[in-house]
Amino acid sequence: MKITRMHGAGGTVMQKLIKETILGNLENTSVNGGIGLESLDDASTIPLGDKEIVFTVDGHTVKPIFFPGGDIGRISVCGTVNDLSVMGATPIALSLSIILPEGFDIENLDKIMKSINEACKEAEVSVITGDTKVSNVDDIIISSAGIGIVGLGNAVRDSGMKEGDVIIVSGNIGEHGLTILLTREGFEFESELKSDVAPINGLVKSVLDAGFKINAMKDPTRGGLADSLNEMAEKSGLGILIHEDKLPISNEVQFIGEALGIDPLTVANEGKVVMAVRAEDSEKILEILKIHPLGKNAKIIGTVTSEHKGVLMETLVGKRIVDTPLGDPIPRVC
Amino acid sequence: MKITRMHGAGGTVMQKLIKETILGNLENTSVNGGIGLESLDDASTIPLGDKEIVFTVDGHTVKPIFFPGGDIGRISVCGTVNDLSVMGATPIALSLSIILPEGFDIENLDKIMKSINEACKEAEVSVITGDTKVSNVDDIIISSAGIGIVGLGNAVRDSGMKEGDVIIVSGNIGEHGLTILLTREGFEFESELKSDVAPINGLVKSVLDAGFKINAMKDPTRGGLADSLNEMAEKSGLGILIHEDKLPISNEVQFIGEALGIDPLTVANEGKVVMAVRAEDSEKILEILKIHPLGKNAKIIGTVTSEHKGVLMETLVGKRIVDTPLGDPIPRVC
Repeated sequence: MKITRMHGAGGTVMQKLIKETILGNLENTSVNGGIGLESLDDASTIPLGDKEIVFTVDGHTVKPIFFPGGDIGRISVCGTVNDLSVMGATPIALSLSIILPEGFDIENLDKIMKSINEACKEAEVSVITGDTKVSNVDDIIISSAGIGIVGLGNAVRDSGMKEGDVIIVSGNIGEHGLTILLTREGFEFESELKSDVAPINGLVKSVLDAGFKINAMKDPTRGGLADSLNEMAEKSGLGILIHEDKLPISNEVQFIGEALGIDPLTVANEGKVVMAVRAEDSEKILEILKIHPLGKNAKIIGTVTSEHKGVLMETLVGKRIVDTPLGDPIPRVC
Repeated sequence: MKITRMHGAGGTVMQKLIKETILGNLENTSVNGGIGLESLDDASTIPLGDKEIVFTVDGHTVKPIFFPGGDIGRISVCGTVNDLSVMGATPIALSLSIILPEGFDIENLDKIMKSINEACKEAEVSVITGDTKVSNVDDIIISSAGIGIVGLGNAVRDSGMKEGDVIIVSGNIGEHGLTILLTREGFEFESELKSDVAPINGLVKSVLDAGFKINAMKDPTRGGLADSLNEMAEKSGLGILIHEDKLPISNEVQFIGEALGIDPLTVANEGKVVMAVRAEDSEKILEILKIHPLGKNAKIIGTVTSEHKGVLMETLVGKRIVDTPLGDPIPRVC
């Protein structure tokens, strides 16, 4: 069998490949009883004294490499910072493995590095190690691994939501994925749309520092909010009911999504977080999120239930199933 | 200006790119006063309590992906484990970022994952986090970042050699690079040559556990022993004098190197270590190395001196300069 685009698109096809061919062959997948690879969470952990080292990696390919709102450099920092953030960790250090094609413009590499620097300053992380190779690729690829620190036992899992929890999303969805699609395909919408790519560690910290517990958390990148909600539901063995009229979606994303026949729920975000929190904390957490510039459009979008499995959405015409996308509707957006 | 193969080949051209375009643009390059990116050592460190987290990354492209003695999977584990090992750290965890081309054979991915698993068991490390993407690449690329642990202040630097130190290399040089070249180019030597790719953490540990201090250490990969020795010399401000007749080189590598006009000193190794140690410890360290299967051909090859800068080699016809290669004589071998 051969690899297809779907194997890298963050949906069910990719999950099968990862579980069978990758996880299925590896025997050593955790350290010191920490969260391991088999959890398929946003990051893993290594207990060390009274702390846990949180460790994650993301390989970044995006076409075009420069787009409204960001570039591959900014994504390389934010994607990894955000994976650490949704574990409840404080991101501290990144590694960058840069693969360049022959003929790549050094001026563009310079721009990308400047963008990486700006994003690192925003996120208060450092690039402490790196590697550069030149190979047969059609464009630059940046793999960024990251290290964060969390107190022992305090990591937030994507599996931890409880019945009755409230689901909050931190802002408008679908902006990154649709921006990439419009830019790449050259659709002629007159659009102000830009990617939401941003480091969310400050936003998450504002909730944790206020003393609130987050039961489960993810950043809805590849596969969009639909993928994240389904994973949270599946891993907890519970269901999620969301309400279409409560989803934070800009008019622009709504319009473009409808025009192109693409559901914004299935499209990548690069500066958002979705969390399950106790119902009694939810309004206060919403208030805290709204104070932060990246959380001003935060919304309560649903609740956790044991009445069904998976994700359902209440719409004007009744409930519909929100499935895990088979694969990303927009190949290579993140 | 455009990127060329030389920018990824581990020589002076690449060093210029890294120093100017990559390091030159980054402001946050270290954490908590640890060893940072600007040191350009084999790994960096993050002090945490009475320990330091050691962090490194390598992007692996190799053609062909299967070769005598190993494959891209085994290199991905060993390359990163070895970078941690030469810092004096105990490697514990790896991340894998896998980039696959469309059409890649899933059976080959399966073989690579099995090889990764075997190498992890040999090195006693775990793959705890990963990411898979499908992109426009001509063959599989694996970036592996790694975490190791060392006691606070105990990291071994590549800059720490002292006048009078003795230089030891742990075994026969040039085998990986020449194996790749022969396999890729299909030269018709009847050859038993195979890559030396192996995790050297056990070998290094045997020296450290015996209580010996290693003043400086590197694993001579891209650019070969010539590159590593020059870097150790430059960073310490001292010179190294090595002796051609003491270099551990197999007859096969010697013969093939001469036939192809390639100096084994400039060719990648993937299972070797070069160290600078106190003269009075050197014979005992050599004995310890020789007990380990990966160190049986270890040799004392030279000494550290303040009489000249850089690296000189005593040959039958006098001394010659051993330069940092401009770039790898064999593109994309590691």
